[in-house]
Amino acid sequence: MSATVFDNPILGKLFDPGQVARCFELQAEINAMLRFETALARVQQNAGVIPQGAARAIEAAADAFSPDLDALSEATRRDGVCVPELVRQLRKAVGEPNAQHVHFGATSQDVIDTSLILRLKPALEQIEHEIAQVTAGLTRLAGASGSQKLNGHTRMQTALPITVGDKIRNWTRPLQDAAVALEALRPRLLRLQFGGAVGTLDKLGENGKDISEALAVELDLAPSVNWHTQRGALAALAGWLSEVTGALGKIGQDISLMAQNEVSEIAISGGGGSSAMPHKQNPVSAELLVTLARYNAAQTGGMHQALIHENERSGAAWSLEWMILPQMVLSCGASLRTAGNLIGRIERIGAE
Amino acid sequence: MSATVFDNPILGKLFDPGQVARCFELQAEINAMLRFETALARVQQNAGVIPQGAARAIEAAADAFSPDLDALSEATRRDGVCVPELVRQLRKAVGEPNAQHVHFGATSQDVIDTSLILRLKPALEQIEHEIAQVTAGLTRLAGASGSQKLNGHTRMQTALPITVGDKIRNWTRPLQDAAVALEALRPRLLRLQFGGAVGTLDKLGENGKDISEALAVELDLAPSVNWHTQRGALAALAGWLSEVTGALGKIGQDISLMAQNEVSEIAISGGGGSSAMPHKQNPVSAELLVTLARYNAAQTGGMHQALIHENERSGAAWSLEWMILPQMVLSCGASLRTAGNLIGRIERIGAE
Amino acid sequence: MSATVFDNPILGKLFDPGQVARCFELQAEINAMLRFETALARVQQNAGVIPQGAARAIEAAADAFSPDLDALSEATRRDGVCVPELVRQLRKAVGEPNAQHVHFGATSQDVIDTSLILRLKPALEQIEHEIAQVTAGLTRLAGASGSQKLNGHTRMQTALPITVGDKIRNWTRPLQDAAVALEALRPRLLRLQFGGAVGTLDKLGENGKDISEALAVELDLAPSVNWHTQRGALAALAGWLSEVTGALGKIGQDISLMAQNEVSEIAISGGGGSSAMPHKQNPVSAELLVTLARYNAAQTGGMHQALIHENERSGAAWSLEWMILPQMVLSCGASLRTAGNLIGRIERIGAE
Amino acid sequence: MSATVFDNPILGKLFDPGQVARCFELQAEINAMLRFETALARVQQNAGVIPQGAARAIEAAADAFSPDLDALSEATRRDGVCVPELVRQLRKAVGEPNAQHVHFGATSQDVIDTSLILRLKPALEQIEHEIAQVTAGLTRLAGASGSQKLNGHTRMQTALPITVGDKIRNWTRPLQDAAVALEALRPRLLRLQFGGAVGTLDKLGENGKDISEALAVELDLAPSVNWHTQRGALAALAGWLSEVTGALGKIGQDISLMAQNEVSEIAISGGGGSSAMPHKQNPVSAELLVTLARYNAAQTGGMHQALIHENERSGAAWSLEWMILPQMVLSCGASLRTAGNLIGRIERIGAE
Repeated sequence: MSATVFDNPILGKLFDPGQVARCFELQAEINAMLRFETALARVQQNAGVIPQGAARAIEAAADAFSPDLDALSEATRRDGVCVPELVRQLRKAVGEPNAQHVHFGATSQDVIDTSLILRLKPALEQIEHEIAQVTAGLTRLAGASGSQKLNGHTRMQTALPITVGDKIRNWTRPLQDAAVALEALRPRLLRLQFGGAVGTLDKLGENGKDISEALAVELDLAPSVNWHTQRGALAALAGWLSEVTGALGKIGQDISLMAQNEVSEIAISGGGGSSAMPHKQNPVSAELLVTLARYNAAQTGGMHQALIHENERSGAAWSLEWMILPQMVLSCGASLRTAGNLIGRIERIGAE
Repeated sequence: MSATVFDNPILGKLFDPGQVARCFELQAEINAMLRFETALARVQQNAGVIPQGAARAIEAAADAFSPDLDALSEATRRDGVCVPELVRQLRKAVGEPNAQHVHFGATSQDVIDTSLILRLKPALEQIEHEIAQVTAGLTRLAGASGSQKLNGHTRMQTALPITVGDKIRNWTRPLQDAAVALEALRPRLLRLQFGGAVGTLDKLGENGKDISEALAVELDLAPSVNWHTQRGALAALAGWLSEVTGALGKIGQDISLMAQNEVSEIAISGGGGSSAMPHKQNPVSAELLVTLARYNAAQTGGMHQALIHENERSGAAWSLEWMILPQMVLSCGASLRTAGNLIGRIERIGAE
Repeated sequence: MSATVFDNPILGKLFDPGQVARCFELQAEINAMLRFETALARVQQNAGVIPQGAARAIEAAADAFSPDLDALSEATRRDGVCVPELVRQLRKAVGEPNAQHVHFGATSQDVIDTSLILRLKPALEQIEHEIAQVTAGLTRLAGASGSQKLNGHTRMQTALPITVGDKIRNWTRPLQDAAVALEALRPRLLRLQFGGAVGTLDKLGENGKDISEALAVELDLAPSVNWHTQRGALAALAGWLSEVTGALGKIGQDISLMAQNEVSEIAISGGGGSSAMPHKQNPVSAELLVTLARYNAAQTGGMHQALIHENERSGAAWSLEWMILPQMVLSCGASLRTAGNLIGRIERIGAE
Repeated sequence: MSATVFDNPILGKLFDPGQVARCFELQAEINAMLRFETALARVQQNAGVIPQGAARAIEAAADAFSPDLDALSEATRRDGVCVPELVRQLRKAVGEPNAQHVHFGATSQDVIDTSLILRLKPALEQIEHEIAQVTAGLTRLAGASGSQKLNGHTRMQTALPITVGDKIRNWTRPLQDAAVALEALRPRLLRLQFGGAVGTLDKLGENGKDISEALAVELDLAPSVNWHTQRGALAALAGWLSEVTGALGKIGQDISLMAQNEVSEIAISGGGGSSAMPHKQNPVSAELLVTLARYNAAQTGGMHQALIHENERSGAAWSLEWMILPQMVLSCGASLRTAGNLIGRIERIGAE
């Protein structure tokens, strides 16, 4: 066992999350934070809140900016969040007279939360794309083998005959449901976070609402008043990710059962080897789908504990999200990649 | 501590779920199961699947039916589900020649799941109604005290001044979000369950689809192919219930903090007494909101574990839902009742 | 689905917890609270803290005491705990001049927590007894069928031959481990709770320690300073209960797999019937063991959330235990009863 | 948010687990696996199971061995576990005629589980050491400030006066309890895993038991028959880790409450800065203790789900442990480091 299955040289390919991992890479995180700061400067300059030329100066500095990571990490240990030090470094890079116009009216949570949302947006597109791919793979399988016969099993006993098409319909529909549910989730999730110190945009006075709306447009996010303590959409995202991995976990569970030697309703190429029994073909991918589903299910409970933020902003509940949510996204990515690959390796399913 | 806080004479009023409890009463459960069986008979008679007169005979027997609960419970111990025995008893009550037409083409899970959905429908209406009531209570409070001043607190430290209106907006929006999210949840949740033994309506042949659609109309549910193993909507419901209790738990957490003697930003009438310190006014209701939120958060993880059904129908995963979901609904009801009452007892909030 | 599986006329026998349920009955709870109050009076009288005769008067009143449950429930709604009202009623029953000597120096949590421990003590003895019974059943099975042959399966594939004895050893040892672990758990769990208002026995002055120790002796519990906010032992109990149900859940999972028609390594008498397929013999008990294991696993996470009590005593975290722990004990009882019964119904296991 | 808080350049120092992290580093994992294989060779050579000279040849190869990580990772993707490929590489390094004597009679899970236990052993020593350090820090604090006065708070309301010593006793005891509980946990956890393909040491015949016992001695672990599917001790470890973080989380919760400006019962040096309000001193460390406690609490539920292994060895449940347990250990390390540091930064607690 390694510290995390995702960052480890040995386990990394087994648990490979595929493309979604890019959203949680260091550079993506830094870029998204800088994107917030530069967009903020542009809209504030347009609104006359900061002087002409300031936005360009900030943008130029951000383009060339490479943070001192040691200082960032050390400051994060102290401050609990990297933004104060990041802003300090960025201001230094901007230099006078525009340094003071960096991050004007914003708070750390505005940067971190918006940075997360900016990266979740492509991550969700990627996941949606991969759901469609897995669904297409299942449709192809139904096209090729849908009329093959299977024993229907209920409560772990053989019941009545069904077809492969029947089984695949039951596998596919939860993925289609999840794709539909994503449409309802997106508008409430992909919102700008911008509230300032206590959520009231206190430094922006009457300009607050206009700047916030322009900033949302600039970042291509839905406009929103602050949601510093309103984490329902993130909890719903966690549930949605677990719905996807749960749907795939059910497929994995079924394939594990169908692949039993005594049942032999499916044959998979390229199964896993054993160090003790070289003849075996372990349904590694199918088991992994169950693992990832149970993992995300457990994490969902943790994300919901993080709904209880204290007062205007919470450190304790907020940081709990940091520990849990990214690995849920990665698990979802790993599950989709594994499922797509597994379905493509089905050599036989059902009988004539 | 009692076996369950909801059924106990001592704790029952503290954890009183209000109206939603009615959906989980024994008689409501039996009625909903009978409603499924009688509606099924009607649509099958209309389709000519069972003879004319059979539906009326079944309906008449169901109207007068009072199950032998001892036999039902004993059979449930053996069968893992009450339907085989319920159908046996109902068939006996119907008598010849129509006994055989009871439950034709259906399976136990069709009855239990549809019965649940038939009861969740009014439960969700009730919850939606109570969310609106709590929201209205908050709006009234904002109307009366919205311009009062509060200290904004972030990371458990005083930050900058805000108003009561600012705080209440942050309390209200997650409830409004939940109300919107319910609209997306309903169509995927409030579906007929009807699949027969292995989900294929095998006994109904070509009539299957028509009968299923007519049955959905008869029961005022959305039509659906079977979802025996597709539990995403129930997991999403669990998440939604936890979103609601989480939103109220955040209010409870805030009020607990505001009511601290040293902070004194709120005064609540009728607080709880102490056996050791008669002078104290404990923020019992506010604490309870936190308790219920953490409870539902933990249960959400359990409901998501139940996504992994094996094969065409699972006993193990399905029964796990039975253990968890009802108390999540009751906790949501208890939280809404408690929150509404608590908000109504606020005597002072903020300062001039 | 009913409000709770344990209190419901339909599901009650399926989820029957057996003897442990008695510890969570209303009368047991009331008796245990009264036992605390009368024992407290006796040791305080012996120590001269309350006058001679007071203890006998309190005991006499407690013996004849039947609380006004409506008033108790109503007061619990307000106070968050039943003790203030219970003490009020008991004092009224005691009458003057001894009423004031009831509950002297104690706080609500002392009564509730000690009452719980007094009932957990026989519950754990019962569970230990049932673990021994299940273990004995497995030993008998090994005696009768231990040399029968089975296919060993790893990662859901047939691997190498084993014997029934090998399999049963793997089933038995976790139960034996749990029995051993219970010995380490008991002394830290079965402790008196007695701390007074803020845990310092403030009203008892220098007598505090002596009275506390005498009270522990009187109640046959380990002596302890207050553990109002130290809930590690209860979290450990939750984990232990889940260990037991997990060990039995693994047996249930194995039996579900062995009982598959295609595998047929086991035959169970009296399996569950189906409403759609009368020929089926569903492994209901085996599936239920999995259900109960997954339930308790999920609840363990909730109990651990309740470790974070605020200050000297918490309402929010404490009440969360009330919602979770009792049903974990009942689930453990139900699992043991189900397992014992299931093992007794094994008609064939393995092949010659 | 980064993929994981532990491996990230920005968050790494905030969530720094300290020394325990070394047990989950890649090299430690590889070394522990090689230690298993070389010890196995030594005891098998002593028993005459493999020829004289084989052990020395395997040991020499292992000393110089540096695995091809790409091949290892690629094979792990296929096999679900790295051991078959690791053994293949090691055999190649050993060369003829001794290659075949590597890993004789063992299975992948023997290597992975024993490797984990070999690393958990020093990790638990480190954690025990840090618990003692935190406890000593609390004792020093009690020595310096124990007689200072505090308001006792119950149910979030001021109750009666207590002393700093009273509060610290309530903070310390759960840590002392955990240290005691560790003594009971160790013998059941720190066991050799050695069972071969299906747990029966089938290749070793009558030598199995002797070799297993000698191997345990060689690795300084408790002897044990295989526990491939008996995961209670790992679930208990998860619970224990959560007990420790829960105990520290309670301290963090208290300090967050005491550090409120309105309460001001504690002063901490070096608190966290804010990007929006430079004057603030956020109790970052105290909040982090709450975060880590809630994280581990949620993970405990996931680890208990992994109790349900199928048949003789499970891929699905086993891999779930890989995803969860290491980060629980790291969270425990991070919590202890944070707590020790926080306690050392207390400048004032209570009032004279």
